[in-house]
Amino acid sequence: MTTIIKNGTLITAADTFEADILIEGEKISLVGKNLQPPAGAEVIDASGKLVMPGGVDPHVHLNLPMFGTVSSDDHYTGHKAAAFGGTTTALDFIPHGPGSFRENIDGWHARADDLAAIDFGFHMNVERVNDDVRKEFHVLGEEGISSIKVFSAYNNRMRLQDGDIFRVLRMAGERGYLTMMHAENGDVIEQLVAEALANGNISTEWHAHTRPAWGAVEAALRGFAMAEQAGAPLYLVHMNTGGETDMLQYARERGLPVMGETCPQYMFFTLEDLQRPDGAKWICSPPMRSKADNERIWKGVMEGTIQTIGTDHCPFFYDGTKPILYEGKEVAIPGKELGKNNFTEIPNGLPGIGDRLPILWTYGVGSGKITANQFVALCSTNPAKIFGMYPRKGSLMPGADADIAIWDPEKTLEYGVKVAHHRTDYNLFEGWKLKGYPEKVFLRGKLIVDGQKWMGKAGMGRYLHRDASAEVL
Amino acid sequence: MTTIIKNGTLITAADTFEADILIEGEKISLVGKNLQPPAGAEVIDASGKLVMPGGVDPHVHLNLPMFGTVSSDDHYTGHKAAAFGGTTTALDFIPHGPGSFRENIDGWHARADDLAAIDFGFHMNVERVNDDVRKEFHVLGEEGISSIKVFSAYNNRMRLQDGDIFRVLRMAGERGYLTMMHAENGDVIEQLVAEALANGNISTEWHAHTRPAWGAVEAALRGFAMAEQAGAPLYLVHMNTGGETDMLQYARERGLPVMGETCPQYMFFTLEDLQRPDGAKWICSPPMRSKADNERIWKGVMEGTIQTIGTDHCPFFYDGTKPILYEGKEVAIPGKELGKNNFTEIPNGLPGIGDRLPILWTYGVGSGKITANQFVALCSTNPAKIFGMYPRKGSLMPGADADIAIWDPEKTLEYGVKVAHHRTDYNLFEGWKLKGYPEKVFLRGKLIVDGQKWMGKAGMGRYLHRDASAEVL
Amino acid sequence: MTTIIKNGTLITAADTFEADILIEGEKISLVGKNLQPPAGAEVIDASGKLVMPGGVDPHVHLNLPMFGTVSSDDHYTGHKAAAFGGTTTALDFIPHGPGSFRENIDGWHARADDLAAIDFGFHMNVERVNDDVRKEFHVLGEEGISSIKVFSAYNNRMRLQDGDIFRVLRMAGERGYLTMMHAENGDVIEQLVAEALANGNISTEWHAHTRPAWGAVEAALRGFAMAEQAGAPLYLVHMNTGGETDMLQYARERGLPVMGETCPQYMFFTLEDLQRPDGAKWICSPPMRSKADNERIWKGVMEGTIQTIGTDHCPFFYDGTKPILYEGKEVAIPGKELGKNNFTEIPNGLPGIGDRLPILWTYGVGSGKITANQFVALCSTNPAKIFGMYPRKGSLMPGADADIAIWDPEKTLEYGVKVAHHRTDYNLFEGWKLKGYPEKVFLRGKLIVDGQKWMGKAGMGRYLHRDASAEVL
Amino acid sequence: MTTIIKNGTLITAADTFEADILIEGEKISLVGKNLQPPAGAEVIDASGKLVMPGGVDPHVHLNLPMFGTVSSDDHYTGHKAAAFGGTTTALDFIPHGPGSFRENIDGWHARADDLAAIDFGFHMNVERVNDDVRKEFHVLGEEGISSIKVFSAYNNRMRLQDGDIFRVLRMAGERGYLTMMHAENGDVIEQLVAEALANGNISTEWHAHTRPAWGAVEAALRGFAMAEQAGAPLYLVHMNTGGETDMLQYARERGLPVMGETCPQYMFFTLEDLQRPDGAKWICSPPMRSKADNERIWKGVMEGTIQTIGTDHCPFFYDGTKPILYEGKEVAIPGKELGKNNFTEIPNGLPGIGDRLPILWTYGVGSGKITANQFVALCSTNPAKIFGMYPRKGSLMPGADADIAIWDPEKTLEYGVKVAHHRTDYNLFEGWKLKGYPEKVFLRGKLIVDGQKWMGKAGMGRYLHRDASAEVL
Repeated sequence: MTTIIKNGTLITAADTFEADILIEGEKISLVGKNLQPPAGAEVIDASGKLVMPGGVDPHVHLNLPMFGTVSSDDHYTGHKAAAFGGTTTALDFIPHGPGSFRENIDGWHARADDLAAIDFGFHMNVERVNDDVRKEFHVLGEEGISSIKVFSAYNNRMRLQDGDIFRVLRMAGERGYLTMMHAENGDVIEQLVAEALANGNISTEWHAHTRPAWGAVEAALRGFAMAEQAGAPLYLVHMNTGGETDMLQYARERGLPVMGETCPQYMFFTLEDLQRPDGAKWICSPPMRSKADNERIWKGVMEGTIQTIGTDHCPFFYDGTKPILYEGKEVAIPGKELGKNNFTEIPNGLPGIGDRLPILWTYGVGSGKITANQFVALCSTNPAKIFGMYPRKGSLMPGADADIAIWDPEKTLEYGVKVAHHRTDYNLFEGWKLKGYPEKVFLRGKLIVDGQKWMGKAGMGRYLHRDASAEVL
Repeated sequence: MTTIIKNGTLITAADTFEADILIEGEKISLVGKNLQPPAGAEVIDASGKLVMPGGVDPHVHLNLPMFGTVSSDDHYTGHKAAAFGGTTTALDFIPHGPGSFRENIDGWHARADDLAAIDFGFHMNVERVNDDVRKEFHVLGEEGISSIKVFSAYNNRMRLQDGDIFRVLRMAGERGYLTMMHAENGDVIEQLVAEALANGNISTEWHAHTRPAWGAVEAALRGFAMAEQAGAPLYLVHMNTGGETDMLQYARERGLPVMGETCPQYMFFTLEDLQRPDGAKWICSPPMRSKADNERIWKGVMEGTIQTIGTDHCPFFYDGTKPILYEGKEVAIPGKELGKNNFTEIPNGLPGIGDRLPILWTYGVGSGKITANQFVALCSTNPAKIFGMYPRKGSLMPGADADIAIWDPEKTLEYGVKVAHHRTDYNLFEGWKLKGYPEKVFLRGKLIVDGQKWMGKAGMGRYLHRDASAEVL
Repeated sequence: MTTIIKNGTLITAADTFEADILIEGEKISLVGKNLQPPAGAEVIDASGKLVMPGGVDPHVHLNLPMFGTVSSDDHYTGHKAAAFGGTTTALDFIPHGPGSFRENIDGWHARADDLAAIDFGFHMNVERVNDDVRKEFHVLGEEGISSIKVFSAYNNRMRLQDGDIFRVLRMAGERGYLTMMHAENGDVIEQLVAEALANGNISTEWHAHTRPAWGAVEAALRGFAMAEQAGAPLYLVHMNTGGETDMLQYARERGLPVMGETCPQYMFFTLEDLQRPDGAKWICSPPMRSKADNERIWKGVMEGTIQTIGTDHCPFFYDGTKPILYEGKEVAIPGKELGKNNFTEIPNGLPGIGDRLPILWTYGVGSGKITANQFVALCSTNPAKIFGMYPRKGSLMPGADADIAIWDPEKTLEYGVKVAHHRTDYNLFEGWKLKGYPEKVFLRGKLIVDGQKWMGKAGMGRYLHRDASAEVL
Repeated sequence: MTTIIKNGTLITAADTFEADILIEGEKISLVGKNLQPPAGAEVIDASGKLVMPGGVDPHVHLNLPMFGTVSSDDHYTGHKAAAFGGTTTALDFIPHGPGSFRENIDGWHARADDLAAIDFGFHMNVERVNDDVRKEFHVLGEEGISSIKVFSAYNNRMRLQDGDIFRVLRMAGERGYLTMMHAENGDVIEQLVAEALANGNISTEWHAHTRPAWGAVEAALRGFAMAEQAGAPLYLVHMNTGGETDMLQYARERGLPVMGETCPQYMFFTLEDLQRPDGAKWICSPPMRSKADNERIWKGVMEGTIQTIGTDHCPFFYDGTKPILYEGKEVAIPGKELGKNNFTEIPNGLPGIGDRLPILWTYGVGSGKITANQFVALCSTNPAKIFGMYPRKGSLMPGADADIAIWDPEKTLEYGVKVAHHRTDYNLFEGWKLKGYPEKVFLRGKLIVDGQKWMGKAGMGRYLHRDASAEVL
């Protein structure tokens, strides 16, 4: 199949220019002036429109079991929501369940492959370090999983001790895997949660009080320091505090091979949102902080201290007792209400995979904080490079997969749960005014979103076998 | 004329990918995979080679009268040297001589137009502010001069008082011109020079002692502050101190519309070079500083605090009494020897237009300090954007002028005066080992450099009518 | 005369301890435990009280002609107000009027000597640099004036060009005088004022808009840089912006011999106060800034970046048409009302000499921002050291002048114009609650304030012949 | 007994002035001008001399068992060496051996009380946290031990997990104890040591390579963060890296209740010293770093980021097989030679208790880096305040213990093992030239050092029952 996108303004991570794009099969084959459509080619007129590489979301959790329920988007509904927001690639995490890496990977493929509607890859959580893990570490790369995740929090669940994190960094460094880190101080949190419960402090905001910002700040530096000492790169996930940004800047200025990711929720919301009556909607880990944190994170994004913006998409119903209509069917999945009497039982997570690009376009590019080129770099090109998918993903250049979003820069709308396509009953950005929105989205040359019309289908998303030893930005 | 560059690795300010480039006439028309050469097209095989946009040098001084002599490269020889180093666009400065702007501009065109061998533009110095200047300010934009330069040093010569700099910023802001600033403290220098001469301190190094670094640091901040207060952008030229870099970072972090340029000489050399017996070779203004300054500037370049690298190319013979052969003819132009008994009489300036890209490739990209993409951004794309020439210059994208340098990444050589093509008798980088070097250079589709063979000629360079209101990076 | 202060808690710049003080004549002669009162000694019981050295105000303007009127406190009323606030030494500034330094000094002695009620010294403004000034520079030191002040603002009035400031620094450095600097950008202010008036912007707040903060920030760094280049120390007066504090920290961290002073008004008030209907009360130069500036200045004070807190006391009546009662007599002096139709005609200045210590005690020490020892250092010991009066002033140690304030740490009151003793009709801190207040104040051993009772008298203040080459803190 | 010290220049943490001191019994009773000696008083003429409070060393290890030997100074010899260097108070650490706190404390008193020659106190190591520890925590304060120490390094020895450190901070905060922290990353060290040994890297310098600086930097911030989260102060011991200083500054600027100590060895020596043939002399934990670290620590000391300078005195013989003469007797104690084939077996520690003040006087005050007042603050007043001994110790004010060192500012000597009185066979500062040296030292009014003559004796040192809830500087 051949498609030609004519007369658009192309935006890459560095360039903005007017040109046509020829898509042949799944790939971009030509970028040029005044391209003549080959016979039979579909011609899309993009006059007055912006043409960008599809978004790459480096951090999502689909169909993730938690607290007796499951995140409410599976690989189909989550991918579909992503696509409507202009995102065409998403990486989610395989829990390190019992059994071998290969068993866990197979299990996750079983959940994802038939449902996937955009291209996808997996990160592997490493939640224990033993001889089996060591012996099977090579399997990850062989399976196209060139990135792993460790946790310094979640004691008795996913937490690794520092020594094990250091060992993982060593092993990862040897194989060119990128280590991602969730950085909080698990010991302090464990104690503060116990104290809070003992004192009867069970309301929503205690989720934040028991996970204090300083613990994230020091754990971030701890991770950076261990990376330096192990001679291996580290990628700090979901940065939510100004202090982490300070530490990332401090470490990078001293040449450490470390990078960072934030998410829109940490750029716009604060503890005050947790204190609202429906504060459970904002419960995720790490929690919302202060306005000063928002601002410092924005500054880090603007100045290049932070390399990527992901979502940590992990939605739950606000009220999982009340069904919603999704693709015409009633659905209800237990959600935030599980913790209405105890903040520790509120499922941690919130929707975002579809919101990321539209929100950042209006409130980042539109507000003058970042340029359109930075937007592409942060949300598409950089994650593609960092996670070993470039130049296949994150690029409009010939040879790249034809993952393309055509944006209408003049489109205005009021955003919210009715516009987003997440399978959940609320949206954090309810009522926000947007200007500029994806109009058409292509996945490897196929039109999957056309205005508000869904053209994709389950199973058309392809698993991405990602390269090791990717660039450290 | 049609040319196709096949199988190269294209490097832009953000992307690295393999593709072919089709040049039709003066423009890049297509970038694509497996392009079929049109009939009659010249085919260049760039297998194993790197294909980059030609360099844009934002800061050169050709045929500039100074101290009773003249900088030894004119618009032909300087452009030719630039081309051999992979640079295809250069901007030089029109002195604000007696008479109107238009007269000065006409005069500079008379010097440049018939000699130009690469594309070129002019910045206008503003060395006085009066009613004539105010009334004629619009002429600059009309003549394609969207950038002006002011000096806080050179008392009784080019210096403007703060009030006049502020007025210029206001006027420039209204018309979208970019104000460039040479930032040192003219009053302090004037006094220190008088003291030095009174004390018999006439040796070369006193050039640096009488232009102390702190004067540059404060004058830089002064310029940034005035820009903020005038609501107009400012571009700090030839940053040579770590302190200026600190101040640029400080100002940018606070949202000021300010940018900065450094030059290779300030990244590699120090006061110790001035103290050599042949120290006059390193005399330019501002002077070389310390190793710590070099390092801070590198850090600024690596982190994006500094946006561009120019050259301030303004060569003089080290010994203008001894002719050299240039294009087969003996040439001698009075130079550094003029000041052998008095540092204040040494012509200020040094060669660099041809050195910039090869030196930075080996000692910046090759050493791992910056990526190839940053190299393109700093030396080509960013200056093109900042000075209103983008996307015509600084880009490999369709529609751009076909200014292209094909680099051989494996080429090694020992650099020096015999390799560089500047019309002078020395080179600062004498004996430096290089790996990676321009092999073929195209100017608007015409091959002007082929290995060590010069294919260009005087007059083929075209004057660039530059846009006002360009991007502030 | 002999006095013994028993059982108090003594607070110095570093020590807090319980001891008795013996005053013999004008000096502290003994500090000890359980001192036996000599025969005839007056015994003051300071049980439960704090005993501190009297405050040293390094920056006041008494009886200063301005805008056709005069600051409303003369050397008697200003000193008396100071004393009630616990301050026993004040330094004011001699304008550089026509005639020689000696003539100016004589003239200022004529205004001050017979009125002075606390000890006092003079700084000399240097508002022109010429041969006369150069030749007579030695006179300053001979007259006990070891500090001078220069201005980079007030074009056509007190402003010196950078070259002259640099010359003054050189001359001052040679003689061990300390150069004080008022740092704003006069040229920018001049132009902005002209623009504001041309645009009809005459309201009070335009006083601040036409003196933008960035001009103070860069001028501060300019001063620091010139000091470094001249090899002479510099003292930045009345720091009112966070940016100046940043620059002072930056310079000090790099070893520059520079120090800074702030004033209470810049720690508590903002532009919003200028925007009040009675905003003229807050008009002084430099102006109030933002809350963020207040906070950064506090941080500078807390961390030791800023060495002293003065007042820049220069009061005017808010409504000089309405008399107030002062020592039982009606007084009215033209004041702020002069500029009711034009901000440029509002006399610049505000009261503060008596407010400084009580306000800072409650809102600095009481709030936990600074310790009592820091309070003594900032308001007494440091200014005494910096300005060549130590250990005669600023100390409780034997040999020091017996300038002592006994504070009642439990005394509470509501502060305001009725409590303060300034000769003006308003107070900036009207209605502020205080805890801790001076109860008894001694000047060289004589009790001059006893509760609310004034025991001092005009003429008892003594002129301080200050040392050159004082410590640079 | 009554002594009067006449005509000296007294130096406190803030004041410098000439006065006499009267000592009655163990206390300073008077400070005054021209004191008349009471009948029978001993009169010391201190004309031309400096009179300072005796040094307070907050960090020493006397008679400490380690690696099968013991630190070679016991409470007598170590105290004697301290006294010769002008130090009159020292705090050492009780290991948390088996048994209760009280048993450990009793055991340490048994080692110290009869030998002590200067006043002394104990910190308590907390090396495990369990119910016994919790229940007995109050005992520490009751025994006058208001400071405890935790370790994030020394796995399987003294290390506490983060959760236990946090619990200790909570408990300490409740009782007003100050928590001291040895901050390195034990897990990383454990692994690096294992790797080094596995690779046959057994030479001295591997001690440093296996304890990398970044581990100390992050562990410092970890400690600060936990302190903030626990609402309790923390004191970082023996800061040896620039990065720790950065983190301390970062934390303090944000209001965290944290303080830091460095030691002379970290201000003067580097990894290169460890690489010398006799590098084992410089083995201590944490290790020497780089010149840049030295400089950053100095800067931290100069600016007040670091509050105290201790010694971590813990000497071992360089060659414990060869006896030295000490007080006329041959002594040899196994030392550094134990690890000649394996860096992990070299006893960790070095002499310093007597070197601290003389070295810092010449190379700190004499070099102009710090003032004499800062010297007193860092080495005497601040540790006395922080550790609950002020104003009894660290002060020259009436009521303080008469611990006084009279310094001869003109005395010059060449320092080294023959001058120092440590019971070991080497000195780190061998051959260093000194100017300024203690001449007479008083402990509670008794002359214990008179020139090179030792007047003290074992048992005269008194145990200090220290206050809880001391000042956080």
